[in-house]
Amino acid sequence: MSATLPPLAGKLGGLRSSAIRDLLKLTARPEVIGLAGGLPDAELMPRERLAVAADNALRGTGCLQYTESPGWAPLRAVLADRESVRLGRAVDVAEVFVTHGSQQALSLLAEVLLEPGALVVVEDPAYVGALQVFRAAGARIVAVPLDGAGMRVDVLKDLLARGERPALVHTVSNFHNPGGVTQSPARRRELAELAAAHGFWVIEDDPYGELWFDRPAPEPVATYSPNVIRLSSASKIISPTLRVGWMVAPDPVCRAVELLKQGADLCGSALTQQIATELLADETWLTSHVDSVRHAYGERAKTLVHELRTRFGDRVRCTDATGGMFVWVDFTDGTDTELLLPGALAAGVAYVPGSAFAVDGDYRHSMRLCFTTSDAATLTAAVDRLARAAGE
Amino acid sequence: MSATLPPLAGKLGGLRSSAIRDLLKLTARPEVIGLAGGLPDAELMPRERLAVAADNALRGTGCLQYTESPGWAPLRAVLADRESVRLGRAVDVAEVFVTHGSQQALSLLAEVLLEPGALVVVEDPAYVGALQVFRAAGARIVAVPLDGAGMRVDVLKDLLARGERPALVHTVSNFHNPGGVTQSPARRRELAELAAAHGFWVIEDDPYGELWFDRPAPEPVATYSPNVIRLSSASKIISPTLRVGWMVAPDPVCRAVELLKQGADLCGSALTQQIATELLADETWLTSHVDSVRHAYGERAKTLVHELRTRFGDRVRCTDATGGMFVWVDFTDGTDTELLLPGALAAGVAYVPGSAFAVDGDYRHSMRLCFTTSDAATLTAAVDRLARAAGE
Repeated sequence: MSATLPPLAGKLGGLRSSAIRDLLKLTARPEVIGLAGGLPDAELMPRERLAVAADNALRGTGCLQYTESPGWAPLRAVLADRESVRLGRAVDVAEVFVTHGSQQALSLLAEVLLEPGALVVVEDPAYVGALQVFRAAGARIVAVPLDGAGMRVDVLKDLLARGERPALVHTVSNFHNPGGVTQSPARRRELAELAAAHGFWVIEDDPYGELWFDRPAPEPVATYSPNVIRLSSASKIISPTLRVGWMVAPDPVCRAVELLKQGADLCGSALTQQIATELLADETWLTSHVDSVRHAYGERAKTLVHELRTRFGDRVRCTDATGGMFVWVDFTDGTDTELLLPGALAAGVAYVPGSAFAVDGDYRHSMRLCFTTSDAATLTAAVDRLARAAGE
Repeated sequence: MSATLPPLAGKLGGLRSSAIRDLLKLTARPEVIGLAGGLPDAELMPRERLAVAADNALRGTGCLQYTESPGWAPLRAVLADRESVRLGRAVDVAEVFVTHGSQQALSLLAEVLLEPGALVVVEDPAYVGALQVFRAAGARIVAVPLDGAGMRVDVLKDLLARGERPALVHTVSNFHNPGGVTQSPARRRELAELAAAHGFWVIEDDPYGELWFDRPAPEPVATYSPNVIRLSSASKIISPTLRVGWMVAPDPVCRAVELLKQGADLCGSALTQQIATELLADETWLTSHVDSVRHAYGERAKTLVHELRTRFGDRVRCTDATGGMFVWVDFTDGTDTELLLPGALAAGVAYVPGSAFAVDGDYRHSMRLCFTTSDAATLTAAVDRLARAAGE
């Protein structure tokens, strides 16, 4: 039947599904321990509190209609308060825009900020959801590597000195996905100063910032310049089911995003935004809830890192996992993680090979491990399986 | 501060907010009877049933995670069953794709189906949410007028005979917004045959089809050709707060939309999609619920039309309002509805001037009235105010 259908747009040929997404379909067998995913732990999500808030919105006098494109006004007010604390200045409600998850913010911002062919600087390894959006927008993409202190701002500086003029720099400043690292305060300041000096935008993509284990994340890059658009989300601290992300951006950016949001989907869900409002406004409850998530993830992260170092010794270097959801592992012995994968799956453990996140580098000797959805015993078993697959 | 910010993309200059949206902000005064909006009546939305379904999803074992990009699988199964009945053939789950309201389907389909500069045929007057999307996609837009039997397919035929080659034709087949008319079965068949013969896509945008008052809407255009992509929504029959729309389209279209949806917002809300699943699967309840909405809207529509004809007589022609949410009024006495608006607002009634929906026509003597959110007494008062403003 499809042979006789009218054609689809030609640009679709350039799009491909995320390699991770395709991999996850293959590794969904119950006997495989999944360290490949990037999901928060559903067991830690506040079912009862969500149910109470849903009930308040639905059985009460809550809004059942279309809501405003920039978001349910009381939610924007709560977010403005929270972001004012985070950014150390009074954030106006007009600077807060609620999106259908952070991914929608990336997608609408790409349209708002980029001309076709514009230069976008990303980190290497990169968050693939952002890469996908920038590629679809027709951007020219240049990568700057990460090290233990986040984006190598010195490499960005060299690019600028060579005359490159990015329209946009994308950074996951806290507990990087996939790299696991956090940008140092000095580099944050330097990145913001470069943005101001050279007139480019920075998207500070921060879904994990509140998931710190030992000490809070540094002040946001957005603290240092109005050129920095800050994205965050309720997905990792409450639940992805709400599809509530938000951005803090200068008013002209928010108004441009508003026009595009009208065409994209009119508005978000008043129901899930009312639920998010109630939970985010309840500071005592939220602090205690996020503390319990932090504690659980922190324990899991420490177990995973300890087991990796114990079992693999000098054969691997891995990040310390000071927050977030991921550990990045580099094999120092030449192990190729793409070649290792079939054996690892046969041994009953799944991970994402580093190459899935590669822009310029190849990361054939690296992997991303997600520790959020497995308890300590399961993580220990996972490392055992991985060690056996890698020929201990 | 914004003077020193980096630039935004140039194409944004071509975007403008919907005139209706801006008008609604101006007319939101409580003393004004609002016939300008396009909202379903929140009083008729099933709060208690929504609350029960939310509770089942949240307090039970429902999904709190990210869901699949094409939609929560049980929802797609329920929709495939419903659409099988509607289309008179077995609709496969792979042909069903859940979107964040129908507007997102339009927006993603514009990317999937249109090359820049492609010809898109719309109805005149047009649904502005579709117009906005096609304009943003850089389409060349040609309009075909409506008459009492829907899109003038003879005019489309003339266009084709003159060598025009549309990539896409957009039609609101049932109870048109804003035009109030329903496409006749003969024209539906003819439109589908033209699509097959000339190799173009049809988007049959059908949010109102279940809101018939006296007899069910005709068989969908999609009954007659696989080139027809059918859009529908839970917004008008249940509540817009769910942000659940869906499309039925050939598998290659759904797979292309899936790739774009990953970049646009990853996936919809598992919570609102689970609620929609429960309500749409409960046929006994749903039939009775939709019957009560139909009954209420039908009474309101008849009151509005009766009052208009009684008070204005030969000065107006208006549609019969056999379903949906809108009555389209043409003044036959030269009344200019843009010029009338300030006086109408002063008299305490708001409507949308026809020009807001115009593509080629100007519709300066027309208006759209929405009857959904006012009871009979209020509609009678509204027509009284309108008649006074129009110099009875």
